[in-house]
Amino acid sequence: MRQVYEIMSSNTVPSAVIRRMPRYYRYLGDLLSRGITRISSADLSRRMNVTASQIRQDLNHFGGFGQQGYGYHVETLYNEIGHILGLDQEYRVIIIGAGNLGQAVAKYTNFNKRGYKVMALFDSDPALAGTIVGGNPVYHVDTLPEYLSEHPTDIAVLSIPKVGANEVAEVLIDNGIQAIWNFASLDLQIDPGKVVVENVHLSDSLRVLTYRLKQLREAEKGTAE
Amino acid sequence: MRQVYEIMSSNTVPSAVIRRMPRYYRYLGDLLSRGITRISSADLSRRMNVTASQIRQDLNHFGGFGQQGYGYHVETLYNEIGHILGLDQEYRVIIIGAGNLGQAVAKYTNFNKRGYKVMALFDSDPALAGTIVGGNPVYHVDTLPEYLSEHPTDIAVLSIPKVGANEVAEVLIDNGIQAIWNFASLDLQIDPGKVVVENVHLSDSLRVLTYRLKQLREAEKGTAE
Repeated sequence: MRQVYEIMSSNTVPSAVIRRMPRYYRYLGDLLSRGITRISSADLSRRMNVTASQIRQDLNHFGGFGQQGYGYHVETLYNEIGHILGLDQEYRVIIIGAGNLGQAVAKYTNFNKRGYKVMALFDSDPALAGTIVGGNPVYHVDTLPEYLSEHPTDIAVLSIPKVGANEVAEVLIDNGIQAIWNFASLDLQIDPGKVVVENVHLSDSLRVLTYRLKQLREAEKGTAE
Repeated sequence: MRQVYEIMSSNTVPSAVIRRMPRYYRYLGDLLSRGITRISSADLSRRMNVTASQIRQDLNHFGGFGQQGYGYHVETLYNEIGHILGLDQEYRVIIIGAGNLGQAVAKYTNFNKRGYKVMALFDSDPALAGTIVGGNPVYHVDTLPEYLSEHPTDIAVLSIPKVGANEVAEVLIDNGIQAIWNFASLDLQIDPGKVVVENVHLSDSLRVLTYRLKQLREAEKGTAE
């Protein structure tokens, strides 16, 4: 039975559905914090600006959690989605690159609240080694293999420039890291069977925004003429 | 003719295609910086891990830029995509929220190099007002309307907690901001006809990574048994 579930969840859930799950989790968390215990699928749909049928279809990939005529029980659904996403476990996190972005991630207290435990930062700058960032030690990046052999780690944040990022990723993977949160502005060359990578390409995002701004302005110009 | 182009580019280019354009731009920029002047569509396809037909189809939304038997002229295509994305103009940027993330964005020198000019930061903490971050002044957020009336601004970065984010977005839009790069962990309630928003939901991204890590581990466990 477990095998069937695994096959279902790893192979048949479309990537777009998976990407929407954290958004459901976020909205349900908000409802929960405001003391709302149940919600109709129509109301949830209106708030999230997706169709009720979309919500139903998405949740059905994981078994479905609504009851006809009742809607959704907020806390149950919140916990179920948290479980699906693996958020009911703790993850030990290291951050490679103690520059501005790495420090911002290290100091982002919400991560520590929510099951992600930052353990240490690493940097190639010897001047940073030995300092403390957000309560966590900064080590020299050359000590990564030694650190990882002694401290089992779940997730590595890559907040370094693209030059050298593939080499660092290789060291991480060779030393047992299975998940990389990549902020470096390149697509890592890695074996997808051994490690999962989630990219945050900030420049790409800003460029999409710029494109849309340009489109908006051209549309306005068209209307004004 | 211009009208036709506008209609084409604003209405018929699928969002997924637009999202891929910055990636093309990034790869072409890398090729250019390595002195590569032309590239076959097969070679570009192999490097980017998408099919040559996908690349052709994507570029055809904007007119297409390849020549049969020649491939792509790297610099021409790079500049054309830059033009499509609106990167041949300068954008004035303000940052709302001078916390760790806002400071990281302000100090990210690549933005200044690439046509995005950070002008000022704003924060609700009176202790931060009057300080300098990455060479830019920090003002109190209450002075936003006054600032915007005197300094035409293209893009506002929203690097504040979700509480109050909608109110700040309203002030921005009322004072002429047409583009918001939103790092606050919520979906802004805004009129899509007046402003474009690009979200960077870091928590969502980390949760997708966690889900994939969980799947990877379950698949491994399945294989090992």
